[in-house]
Amino acid sequence: MRLAELSRRSGVPTATIKYYLREGLLPPGQRVTATQSAYDESHLQRLRLVRALIQVGRVPIASAREVLTALEDESLDHNSRLGTAVWALPHGPESTEDDAAADAARRTVDELLARLDWARAQEYGRDSPAHRMLVTAVATLGRLGYPCAVEDLLPYARTGRQLAESDLDLIERYASPEEQLEAAVALTVLYEPVLLSLRRIAQAEESGRRFDPRGAPE
Amino acid sequence: MRLAELSRRSGVPTATIKYYLREGLLPPGQRVTATQSAYDESHLQRLRLVRALIQVGRVPIASAREVLTALEDESLDHNSRLGTAVWALPHGPESTEDDAAADAARRTVDELLARLDWARAQEYGRDSPAHRMLVTAVATLGRLGYPCAVEDLLPYARTGRQLAESDLDLIERYASPEEQLEAAVALTVLYEPVLLSLRRIAQAEESGRRFDPRGAPE
Repeated sequence: MRLAELSRRSGVPTATIKYYLREGLLPPGQRVTATQSAYDESHLQRLRLVRALIQVGRVPIASAREVLTALEDESLDHNSRLGTAVWALPHGPESTEDDAAADAARRTVDELLARLDWARAQEYGRDSPAHRMLVTAVATLGRLGYPCAVEDLLPYARTGRQLAESDLDLIERYASPEEQLEAAVALTVLYEPVLLSLRRIAQAEESGRRFDPRGAPE
Repeated sequence: MRLAELSRRSGVPTATIKYYLREGLLPPGQRVTATQSAYDESHLQRLRLVRALIQVGRVPIASAREVLTALEDESLDHNSRLGTAVWALPHGPESTEDDAAADAARRTVDELLARLDWARAQEYGRDSPAHRMLVTAVATLGRLGYPCAVEDLLPYARTGRQLAESDLDLIERYASPEEQLEAAVALTVLYEPVLLSLRRIAQAEESGRRFDPRGAPE
């Protein structure tokens, strides 16, 4: 298909598609004439992923390029490509503070992962951005007067594991490794607001059950 | 205590504390002389909450004021204050698009809540910001080529309910209603990065278990 059709089918303006092509977020089409290229279904699929990352995930262009490069790195096996792509996704603010709260948070997270017996999390350990994000969050809780112990985190970690199982179930529905990789990246980002909103809806439900003096609504 | 001590004990610069006082995020201290006021432990506690909202939760000043006003609204019972405060927290981007994907998402979320038998979520229904955030997220998934059915969302909703139970368990550790309210707001915001980072760490763990050709690390 030509650029105009790619734009129509994806809902992405042609100027934006040209920008993504220039930035290397979308592979070039097949050259047809000096000024025209042809695009196929793989471009449409990739465009969806780029939109998911940039519009919903608010991923900066440079990080998006890094994620997409990992998806295409044929020197890696499937699991490593998946890991590298998710690794390159932004992970929220990281603290640069290195105080007593940060030390305590590192110890708490190390102990948590040991208690959970998550072999890979211990192997990759402190190098992973998700690990640093967790340490930052725990340190911030401590600094703000809400210290959290390993026991406080354990239920959240177990819930996190269940979420990861649901995520991987969704991803395994896709047949080809390429589709699985794209789905992994897109769904990791796109399910964050789903999860956070369901948590808040459930909080209202649970808070009502525990505290509402009127009892359950009719 | 004087302003200087409040600053020292909270780690918040005096200029920032004065700004919070002017913006009504912190109640005024007790006037001692024409130029000096005295502050107590309740100011220290409130200052922690304001920092949690603004620094970690990136809550705009106006929303923070709305949350704090709800916490202090003595015309409301405990559960309603809790609900109003969390209600006023920002809920991420909301879509203004009103297309077929938005219609489908509304139907999916309605059916989800009916299936879950969450009485309060159905009662407050479409008015709640968390509900709108969920509809937006589901509609975005649909537009980007990852439609989600009620069955896809059910495991996330059940996980959300478990999270809410863990949240309320943490909150109920605080003895007074005032502390519970502050903890509810602070922990709702502060545990979001904890949860999202644990999900990503668990994804690497679960993905390795399912796909890693080398098997589990030693």
